[in-house]
Formats: sequence, structure tokens, C-alpha cells
Amino acid sequence: MPPDAQQPNLVLLRHGQSQWNLENRFTGWIDVPLTDQGRDEARRAGRQIREAGIELDAAWTSVLTRAIHTLWLVLDEIDAPWLPVRRDWRLNERHYGGLQGLNKAETAARHGDDQVHIWRRSYDIPPPPLDADDPSHPRFDRRYRDIPRDALPSAESLQLTLERVLPCWNAEIAPALANGQRLLIAAHGNSIRAIVKHLDRISDADITDLNIPTGMPLGYTLSPQLGVLNRGYLAPAEPNQ
Amino acid sequence: MPPDAQQPNLVLLRHGQSQWNLENRFTGWIDVPLTDQGRDEARRAGRQIREAGIELDAAWTSVLTRAIHTLWLVLDEIDAPWLPVRRDWRLNERHYGGLQGLNKAETAARHGDDQVHIWRRSYDIPPPPLDADDPSHPRFDRRYRDIPRDALPSAESLQLTLERVLPCWNAEIAPALANGQRLLIAAHGNSIRAIVKHLDRISDADITDLNIPTGMPLGYTLSPQLGVLNRGYLAPAEPNQ
Repeated sequence: MPPDAQQPNLVLLRHGQSQWNLENRFTGWIDVPLTDQGRDEARRAGRQIREAGIELDAAWTSVLTRAIHTLWLVLDEIDAPWLPVRRDWRLNERHYGGLQGLNKAETAARHGDDQVHIWRRSYDIPPPPLDADDPSHPRFDRRYRDIPRDALPSAESLQLTLERVLPCWNAEIAPALANGQRLLIAAHGNSIRAIVKHLDRISDADITDLNIPTGMPLGYTLSPQLGVLNRGYLAPAEPNQ
Repeated sequence: MPPDAQQPNLVLLRHGQSQWNLENRFTGWIDVPLTDQGRDEARRAGRQIREAGIELDAAWTSVLTRAIHTLWLVLDEIDAPWLPVRRDWRLNERHYGGLQGLNKAETAARHGDDQVHIWRRSYDIPPPPLDADDPSHPRFDRRYRDIPRDALPSAESLQLTLERVLPCWNAEIAPALANGQRLLIAAHGNSIRAIVKHLDRISDADITDLNIPTGMPLGYTLSPQLGVLNRGYLAPAEPNQ
């Protein structure tokens, strides 16, 4: 592969289908597993990365199982379980507050289609917060025990999601890219949106219309200053592999 | 669990059976996968850790797939795929040099039982070195590209294995334990021997007789100064879980 082929040095990957994607329930920080289809999507994404000839140096993921399992399946497909992996809670999905666990149709019946549309598609309006005493609140979850209590969300708008993703990007991921590392980030619809908004300078109004599909690796070729030289979903993997 | 129960704060785990354990071949740094039995052993080890009530804070492993996969299976069983994981090449198996890939019976037929016994059971005699141009030499493997060339082994005695495991222990693992973290190390027979020799002050002569079984979690309760207060294999998991 000639150097001018501008191989991606950053690959963004939303996890494969989860059980609650399938059931059309608001998931957020609830730690639901992948479905069999989701695991297949992850393996296919791994083959796409391999067939594109992308050699990765490290990987990042959230602390949610569906993203971590997606990453593990990719690492196996690219024969690189040995890649350094960093898990960071700031790459988690948007926290969906009191809506987490609710079926989207039921939520619309209770709150009205217009209100649900606002929660889902506005940039800066968070859903109703999760009660601080709710057993599913992150303050009761051991994986967040080292996070300052006031940094743990009870509900997030997309804007609030960006505001915790970007410090991770700026402090950890961007320096690694600027240092020449080629990275994979296996994460979630809204944490990936945050990164795409930042890289592609998408407006607050436009970002809420951007859909990030599950299990489709999105490659970015970034300059040393992290300007976007090229971007696009990787070519589909051959079906018989 | 009362605090005086001296719960282990360090768990050492040799990977489950690999394909070449099964075939009785010298493995070393060759990256062979687990067998189905090896995967079962890893899951059972995870259940033992869970049933012992041990809450881990982080995990360490080598850059060899059989140890990493063992760790992944354990993390799933203890519902903690989110645990921070550090991979370090210095936790790799002993490098078995020119014997790697050979069946142990064939090796004995070629070199004689006595010589093979010396290579396997002496403390400081390395096997014949791997040719530096052998395609399986670690210098051709991307996972070692950031390691100084003269640090990469072509063959190791148990002593040489210790001499690269202990700097990892001293610089990375011991400080984490002294800082109160409870750690799992999923690694290999000889890298675990190195740690056990260090912790239990076993002599050069005695350590070569110590066998580390596959898939059996070995718990250590260490003082803040990392003195050994207690040790032992965890109780077997209930068969029906």
C-alpha cells in the first residue's frame, strides 16, 4: 500500500446490535449484552478492518460490555488480541436518565411523541434525570468508584455527552494520534457522534440528524495536526470469509 | 466478609490448556490458541474467583493470546469486562528458543532424555537459541516492535525469564499492590514461577520443581509491604454453575 493511499489512522466503530437495540428500549449506561447478530456485526467489522490493510497500534473503548465485547471480537479477527486497550468511562453512551430501560413506544405513549422527539433529537435538552437513589445510578456501580461523584451523570443531553467525551479526546486520544499511533475506538452512537462533530466541525443543529450505524467501521485519515484529510465507511467484507 | 478474613489481593492464574499443551510441544512465545478444554478451565477459574468473593481492581496479562483469552473468559465470569487490563510482554512464557514447536518426545529422541531434562529442569541453562533469521523470531513480530532489539530473547533459561519478569513486577505491579489495588495476573507457567519464587523466596534449586497447573487460581494475601500473609489455590467452583 503506497503511503499516498492515505490509510485511515483512526477507526470509529459503534458496537453491534445489543439486546435493547433489538427490543427498542432506551439503553444509555445500562450494561446490556450484544445479541448474536451484534456479535456477527462485530466480527464482520473486524474483517473489514483486516481487509482494508489497516494496522492498528492501540484501541480505546468504554466501560460498557457491549463496546468491550465488540472490541474483543474485532481484535480476534485482526489477529491482534495483544493490542494495548484503554477503557475510559468518558467514552460511554449518552446517559438516558429516567428513560433507561423504557420501551420507546411506551415512552411515547406516556410522554407524547413530541416530547420524546425533543429528548432524542435536541442538542441540549436532557431527559428526566435518574433518581439518585435508583439502584441503577452509576454511583452504586463499582466501575465508577474512582470517578468524582459530581462528574457522574443522572441524565445527559448530547451536549453534555460531548462535554465529557472531548476531555478524554483532548487529553488522551488526540496526543496518541498526533504521536503517530493508529487507533481504533469501539464505543457508542452518541460518544462517536461527539468525536465526529469535533473532527468534522458539524454544527449543533446538524449533529442530531447524523446517524451512526452499528458495526460499520468509519475510517478517518487525519493530518499530524489532526485535520481531516479523508473519511468514509470501510468497504464491506467479502461475504464468504 | 470480615476484614480479618485476609481475602487475597493478588491472584495468579496460568492460562488454560493450549493446543500445544495438548500436543506436548514446546510452546514458549509461539502464539497458539486455547483448546476447548482450556476455555472451560478459564471459565471455571473465573467462577472460583467469583465464588471466593474476591473483588478485583485491575488485571495484568502477557501479549500472548492464550493468556489474554483466559483473562477475557475470567472477566466475563466475574461480570467485570470493564476492569483495566495491562498487557506486558515481560509476562510472556519462557522463550524456548530452537525447541519451540518441537514435540517433547521427538526432542528427547534427537537430543537425549538427559539433555532435555537439563533444559527443562535446570535454573540457568537456556535451550539452543532460535536463529535470528527464523521467521518466528520475535524481532519480526509487530507486537514487539517497540521493544529494544537486544532485550528480545532468542532463548531463555528460567533465570533469564525471571530477569525480565521482575522488572515488570517491581516497576508496575508491586506499586499497584502497595497502593491497595487487588490484582489478577493471567500469565504462563514460567512467568508465574518467577513471581512465586520472588514472593515466597524459593531457592534457585527448588523453584524448578514447582509446577504451576493450568487454570487454577492461586491467591496471595500480601501485607502493605508485600510480605506473604497467606497463600493457596482457591476452592474448586461448584460443578453445576
